[in-house]
Amino acid sequence: MTADSMTADAGQTPLSTLPVALDASGGDHGAPPNVDGAVQAARAGVPVLLVGDRVKLHAELGKHAGSSSLPLEVVDAPDVIGMDEHATDVRGRPQASINVCMKLVKEGKAAAAVSMGHSGATMTAALFTLGRVRGVDRPAILTHLPAQGGFTTLLDAGANTDVRPTYLVQWARLASVYLKVLEDRENPSVGLLSIGEEDHKGSGLVVETNALLRELHGKGVNFYGNVEGRDVFKGTTDIVLTDGFTGNVVLKLAEGEAKVLFGWVKEALNSNLKSKLGGLLARDALRGLAERMDPSTYGASLLVGVRGLAFIGHGSADARAVKNALLRAARAHEGHLIPRLEAAFQEQPK
Amino acid sequence: MTADSMTADAGQTPLSTLPVALDASGGDHGAPPNVDGAVQAARAGVPVLLVGDRVKLHAELGKHAGSSSLPLEVVDAPDVIGMDEHATDVRGRPQASINVCMKLVKEGKAAAAVSMGHSGATMTAALFTLGRVRGVDRPAILTHLPAQGGFTTLLDAGANTDVRPTYLVQWARLASVYLKVLEDRENPSVGLLSIGEEDHKGSGLVVETNALLRELHGKGVNFYGNVEGRDVFKGTTDIVLTDGFTGNVVLKLAEGEAKVLFGWVKEALNSNLKSKLGGLLARDALRGLAERMDPSTYGASLLVGVRGLAFIGHGSADARAVKNALLRAARAHEGHLIPRLEAAFQEQPK
Repeated sequence: MTADSMTADAGQTPLSTLPVALDASGGDHGAPPNVDGAVQAARAGVPVLLVGDRVKLHAELGKHAGSSSLPLEVVDAPDVIGMDEHATDVRGRPQASINVCMKLVKEGKAAAAVSMGHSGATMTAALFTLGRVRGVDRPAILTHLPAQGGFTTLLDAGANTDVRPTYLVQWARLASVYLKVLEDRENPSVGLLSIGEEDHKGSGLVVETNALLRELHGKGVNFYGNVEGRDVFKGTTDIVLTDGFTGNVVLKLAEGEAKVLFGWVKEALNSNLKSKLGGLLARDALRGLAERMDPSTYGASLLVGVRGLAFIGHGSADARAVKNALLRAARAHEGHLIPRLEAAFQEQPK
Repeated sequence: MTADSMTADAGQTPLSTLPVALDASGGDHGAPPNVDGAVQAARAGVPVLLVGDRVKLHAELGKHAGSSSLPLEVVDAPDVIGMDEHATDVRGRPQASINVCMKLVKEGKAAAAVSMGHSGATMTAALFTLGRVRGVDRPAILTHLPAQGGFTTLLDAGANTDVRPTYLVQWARLASVYLKVLEDRENPSVGLLSIGEEDHKGSGLVVETNALLRELHGKGVNFYGNVEGRDVFKGTTDIVLTDGFTGNVVLKLAEGEAKVLFGWVKEALNSNLKSKLGGLLARDALRGLAERMDPSTYGASLLVGVRGLAFIGHGSADARAVKNALLRAARAHEGHLIPRLEAAFQEQPK
């Protein structure tokens, strides 16, 4: 069976019109940025199901002139998993917005689920409702970081803190298919994050994983070898592979450092009259750079390895991040990402 | 016994004149930056023993006018551990420059050893020749990163890839004493690097370590709790504690990101005539910032937990880094760092 023959089930809503389900109650700021982002995505042609408290969502939609003519629909979900609750609290709460989102995906009524809410709860709900791709032991969070020449794809960015070499190998395969399908990279290179380039350097986990990836080289995975922290921004490889503990530290450090550094650049430009004038003249040029570094440019990270499209964003996401996440989700669906991942896992060596 | 009573052995050279031993053959560029940095340090009042190939070092010294009147001395060491050799190659090579440096420290003829050479070899030589502080299972690499409000002290930056919770607890105590002695921080705060602030979040290692540090809170360690990647540059705590794998990734990522980001700022400033003019006006202000981010500002990292002062720098270190490392080493010796660390380990709870 080829990947193409698996893309659509008969009788399902045509792909182009299948909406993306948004956990519109999720995140630090609740409905406002979610609804705002959904309105922007709908204007860009992506239909959205707003999942959450019906009354609140309609009130929020009312603030956006002309939204009634957009492809937006409210799906009532009176419950929401709070940011301070436990991930496992999703079980036994079918009315929670994130569970309703996943159910819509499972039933083929939504192309993907997007949430800026509790990331652990989103992962648990996805696993519980959608299940795993056959051959995948653990799903991972796949994210992007800006890098020289484009961006670096990093996984796992936080789903699994204690891992096994076989998980990392599976993630290398998943990420390779992902970049082929969504970013047209023909033979994406995979680097294994370590503390030295040599195969024998690193933790026990890394040394074992390195050996497994060497065996797999050329068989669906273009393994470059070990990479170091500096290679993430240098863009040495398309994909940087690591455990969810290190990956989460990397992601948050990278974002935090960019924020602090830009703050310092601003401070330096404001330090005297001459530099202030210089800053004014260079403002537009620097603004483009700030945007490139802004995490909301990528919108949300993909939970890869579950049998359905699920995206997890920052709790602090703004409308722009929500919009970009919805567009990315729609693109992943149109690119038949899930059936292609499943096909690749059946074809490739175990 | 108080810390002060332990600072000097009778019959030893007076502290203020004890030179620092520099592995002058070590590093990617060999003698030139080492000798240049030593000349600068000597001019600043720090006597230096240049350890390496006698002929080469004298030739190099000849290039610096007036160096013969400075407190510089060459100690012959015809062998050197190459950057591509194994760390364990230091054993059985007593003439290797790094081994000669450590021997000088051990015999009380040098205040400290500084090397920009093979870091694994430096660690092995230090462990082998100097031994460990009583109560310390594994030495760690202690380094500094720029942060809001000053700098963050990070350890372990790469000495131990697979660790136990007890190692991390010992490092928390070592780093606390270090900051008190060398940076006058009265009650430095310790953050444990994790992927969530809550005590129950993180890898198995982190959860166990968190519990041990909670017990120790107030007993020589001011434990703040878990911190995340973003807290490193935010400067949430004085000390960030982690295993040597994560710490090395953090250090190299932070340096690599700063380099790439400044490259992008430069590019943005060169993108058009208006921004170019702005860049010229803001040049001085931005240069100060670039210097703050430059790893050579800190010079080298301390190998903490061995019974003697040993500093490990970048292979690519320039003269400025060498000079700063030598000044830092002299300051650590004048502050009686090692005897104070030993005293603290005897006084504090195990």
